[in-house]
Amino acid sequence: MRQTFDEATDRSFGPRHVPLIRKAMADQGLDGFVAPHEDEHQNEYLPAANDRLAWATGFTGSAGAAVILKDKAAIFVDGRYTLQVRDQVDQAVFEIRDLVDGGVPAYLEATTTAGQVIGYDPRLHSPDALDRLKTAAAKAGSELKPVTPNPLDAAWGAARPAQPVAPVVPHPLQYAGEDSASKRHRIGATLAQRGAGAAVITAPASIAWLFNVRGGDVIRSPLPLGQAILNADGSARLFLEPGKITPELPAWLGNEVRLETPADLPQALADQRGQTVLIDPGQSSAWYFETLGEAGASILRAEDPCVLPRACKNAVEIAGTKRAHIRDGAALTRFLHWVATEGQASPPDEITAVSKLEGFREDTGALKDLSFDTIAGAASNGAIVHYRPTTRLNKRTEMGSLLLVDSGAQYLDGTTDVTRTIAIGEPSAEMAERFTLVLKGHLALARVRFPTGTTGSALDALARMALWAHGLDYDHGTGHGVGSYLGVHEGPQRISKAPSTVALQPGMIVSNEPGYYKEGAYGIRIETLQVVTEAAEIPGGERPMLGFETLTLAPIDRRLVAKALLSDEERAQFDAYHARVLATVGPLVPGAVRKWLTEVCAPI
Amino acid sequence: MRQTFDEATDRSFGPRHVPLIRKAMADQGLDGFVAPHEDEHQNEYLPAANDRLAWATGFTGSAGAAVILKDKAAIFVDGRYTLQVRDQVDQAVFEIRDLVDGGVPAYLEATTTAGQVIGYDPRLHSPDALDRLKTAAAKAGSELKPVTPNPLDAAWGAARPAQPVAPVVPHPLQYAGEDSASKRHRIGATLAQRGAGAAVITAPASIAWLFNVRGGDVIRSPLPLGQAILNADGSARLFLEPGKITPELPAWLGNEVRLETPADLPQALADQRGQTVLIDPGQSSAWYFETLGEAGASILRAEDPCVLPRACKNAVEIAGTKRAHIRDGAALTRFLHWVATEGQASPPDEITAVSKLEGFREDTGALKDLSFDTIAGAASNGAIVHYRPTTRLNKRTEMGSLLLVDSGAQYLDGTTDVTRTIAIGEPSAEMAERFTLVLKGHLALARVRFPTGTTGSALDALARMALWAHGLDYDHGTGHGVGSYLGVHEGPQRISKAPSTVALQPGMIVSNEPGYYKEGAYGIRIETLQVVTEAAEIPGGERPMLGFETLTLAPIDRRLVAKALLSDEERAQFDAYHARVLATVGPLVPGAVRKWLTEVCAPI
Repeated sequence: MRQTFDEATDRSFGPRHVPLIRKAMADQGLDGFVAPHEDEHQNEYLPAANDRLAWATGFTGSAGAAVILKDKAAIFVDGRYTLQVRDQVDQAVFEIRDLVDGGVPAYLEATTTAGQVIGYDPRLHSPDALDRLKTAAAKAGSELKPVTPNPLDAAWGAARPAQPVAPVVPHPLQYAGEDSASKRHRIGATLAQRGAGAAVITAPASIAWLFNVRGGDVIRSPLPLGQAILNADGSARLFLEPGKITPELPAWLGNEVRLETPADLPQALADQRGQTVLIDPGQSSAWYFETLGEAGASILRAEDPCVLPRACKNAVEIAGTKRAHIRDGAALTRFLHWVATEGQASPPDEITAVSKLEGFREDTGALKDLSFDTIAGAASNGAIVHYRPTTRLNKRTEMGSLLLVDSGAQYLDGTTDVTRTIAIGEPSAEMAERFTLVLKGHLALARVRFPTGTTGSALDALARMALWAHGLDYDHGTGHGVGSYLGVHEGPQRISKAPSTVALQPGMIVSNEPGYYKEGAYGIRIETLQVVTEAAEIPGGERPMLGFETLTLAPIDRRLVAKALLSDEERAQFDAYHARVLATVGPLVPGAVRKWLTEVCAPI
Repeated sequence: MRQTFDEATDRSFGPRHVPLIRKAMADQGLDGFVAPHEDEHQNEYLPAANDRLAWATGFTGSAGAAVILKDKAAIFVDGRYTLQVRDQVDQAVFEIRDLVDGGVPAYLEATTTAGQVIGYDPRLHSPDALDRLKTAAAKAGSELKPVTPNPLDAAWGAARPAQPVAPVVPHPLQYAGEDSASKRHRIGATLAQRGAGAAVITAPASIAWLFNVRGGDVIRSPLPLGQAILNADGSARLFLEPGKITPELPAWLGNEVRLETPADLPQALADQRGQTVLIDPGQSSAWYFETLGEAGASILRAEDPCVLPRACKNAVEIAGTKRAHIRDGAALTRFLHWVATEGQASPPDEITAVSKLEGFREDTGALKDLSFDTIAGAASNGAIVHYRPTTRLNKRTEMGSLLLVDSGAQYLDGTTDVTRTIAIGEPSAEMAERFTLVLKGHLALARVRFPTGTTGSALDALARMALWAHGLDYDHGTGHGVGSYLGVHEGPQRISKAPSTVALQPGMIVSNEPGYYKEGAYGIRIETLQVVTEAAEIPGGERPMLGFETLTLAPIDRRLVAKALLSDEERAQFDAYHARVLATVGPLVPGAVRKWLTEVCAPI
């Protein structure tokens, strides 16, 4: 699981691979091919075998697409990746375009011509995205044609990594808190209420949650790649590669779950003839919709019915994540102590910092994986929101600069995600002022109480107000959902500027991570995870309120706090958090670390 | 324009009028009829001639519907009106149901039976609402049938008031700031860009704004009822009853605008054959969509293209509304002085307070109308958000209670809307605490700076945070748009919990009106209007920010402020506002009032 610092691609990927793709296109009689970042599982992270966009272009960002025509090609990325794409992609091969503004549809409309045939793989596009592509091609008079296998996979050939076959193992009740039969029956009942006989489930995190299993097909998250059909009576068919099935799995799944292989899936969809089937157009590709439609099933487009119940953690999961956060907080505290002592004497480079932190987490004996590659951004690298250190970019921290470390771990009992920004040497007054503005927003979002029905988008401004008052802001969301030994990013809740209709509900875990980034200079982010709880009764209060309980336990660098900018209420909140860190994590760290922790957790 | 305190309906309306409607239904071969609150103009306020729901049921709220079947009937209202509907409607005739939860469609589905024919008037329903009704009836096997004239109008007959024919007059450039030709050409150009040859405009406020005219067909707002077709070349056809056309109007409208009568409208819609026509399903009834569809026009469903430009006031309109607010603030200050002196000696009843305030506004010599019937809620009446004093409900204020006064005026140069809550005698500690929590929210929303692209729903929580922290909240929006000598409620912007995708833009006027209501005891609301502006540059700031400038100028009752609950920043903001009130309004009020104003505007 050790984080590596090599680059998986380089700028030669486009010049070397696009000619191979064009040859395969010619063999199939195609004038072009649309290659999205998404794979067959429409998951955030991809196994190497499915990272088609990276192989074709060199670009390794988490969102994007390419269109390869006979005589030209374009890559499409969003605003987060404008620097990275220029670094990774050879512009002699790929024109760089905006993924959001116009995107692939506008390009197809403007660039393809009447009679041209453009291939697409129906397993890789959501039905809505595909409709937009078809509409655009129709305007240009060109035709979109489904191709299986697609020309990119054909060109990749023997060089393509094998599909992952990590074992699928039981996730015990002591961590899951509710057995699979209970989950299947209660969700099955909601299907019946909505007039659906079954639901097609393709999101890996939903499969893991529904069946109480975990896998390892996708790096940094214990996800099994597969598919399932859940019937309204609570029974289910689960489609997994036979090589993944561990001996104990059939008994764990029980009689109501039939284990089948992905090759059985087309027939299983055909079996839905005459029945109403729920399927989520945000999670499942156009191929499912076409196959169900051809089978004569009646399609109910709706959100994956596992998403909301999965987000609302039960008491066992919450107790587990609290244990995980205490354990992880102790490891992070040892790392922060190391930076504050050895690291101040001889400022480390980013890769050393990442490896050191991973070592402290391994020392817990409970680490299953990192929950994502650690971001350690020294000085100007900290201002690149999606930065990940590599051997080529690795930077040594310097006195008078900041080190931003965003990291997390997967434990059986919970998933963590935490960012701390650390002063190396003496920070400037500007650094401290801006850190404190970020802290004020972080504290406001941690202490807010809000009535039932409030969405994350209604709370987002609380984390930004202090920055806004100074003419500052940050260009990312404030909070994302986090799974229970599952994906470190999960919905449906989030805290962001984007309007949301999803109310925050007890048991949901969200991050609280405002930031500030000064391009070319430094980056600041303070992130903890917090769980939605029913707020303690307030004397004179009239309405039931919700609030947050902070899960993450690790000190925030007091040397970066401009005390004069904090109100009395904010100082008390900051001190109370540190008292809790000391009381909870202190007993778990070595004596020298505990001594240091006592100092950095003292009231400011 | 004097506000009256009689009730337009009583509980006998249902028993007296429903039999007449049932007889007309029988004459038309109908088993039922759906009567919505909305009229042909889909406007918020109705002329008496179109208040069908009130005539049929007795209910005078601003939203609702009724279904009258042969042997039963139901009225549908939302949560705001649950008390009022019980007061006004005879439940022996009408079952009371929830307008939102299930509403009319669920009732039609559950109550009508196969073969029944239920009438509806296509001029009174939005196309989306009508689709829901048709789907529900189809499930029950009943049929929805368009009927013109509808049985309610037939039953109303000679007793129905005449349609209003208030003169339509020019709205001079010194108030409008942009001539009609300029507005028509720039909006026509946007139609052309979107591939539309014309737009059908039916919202009275859009007609008033686009042609720079004002009318008087709807009480409390200078709106002309009519319709228009705006062509992409900037020319237009305007449909007004001939009796409304003033001699100067044709020359004011110019050569590009053809004046026609509403009787010409069906032919004008038929003339759209083969052309793409933009029409707003939120503003125009199903009749327009059906008529355009039958004519062979291609319909582009989109927001009325006048709505956003109308909301962003130009410099002349903003200068006008500032003048109007100073004038109105002086009148309101005279009223507040009267309450603070004579009113404390002998506490007034609500009707006396309303009449006194209207008199001070009339004294300005510029009052065209109230912008809505003044809400004066003494003690427990203040807790009823939609309260309006009547002779029957009129309450005398008492020592130790609160008086909530929400009022506004229409002037040629601007529309005002302001709420002040006044202590009569000595307020309780609880009143002061809760007033101060409302004030903290009000001040937070007044001083916030925010980046371009921020919606009103992102800011709503700022006005509620302080209440939430004490387990309190209020059940209405925080802010609505306000017109320029037009409707006191206008979109598209609003500040509320409901998710919005409309960004606040410079020139938009919004109210800032958090509140707190203790049922059976008292109500608190503090409301000012504020205009979105580009925020002053902030030293060290990096991004262009927007902010608000407060328009309303009248003192906030300092006797209700619990100073200890305010931060230093809030106290300074409160004092700065009062210094501005004194400097601006002070010179316009009589000496005794000015002396009092000086005292109540002193720093706290």
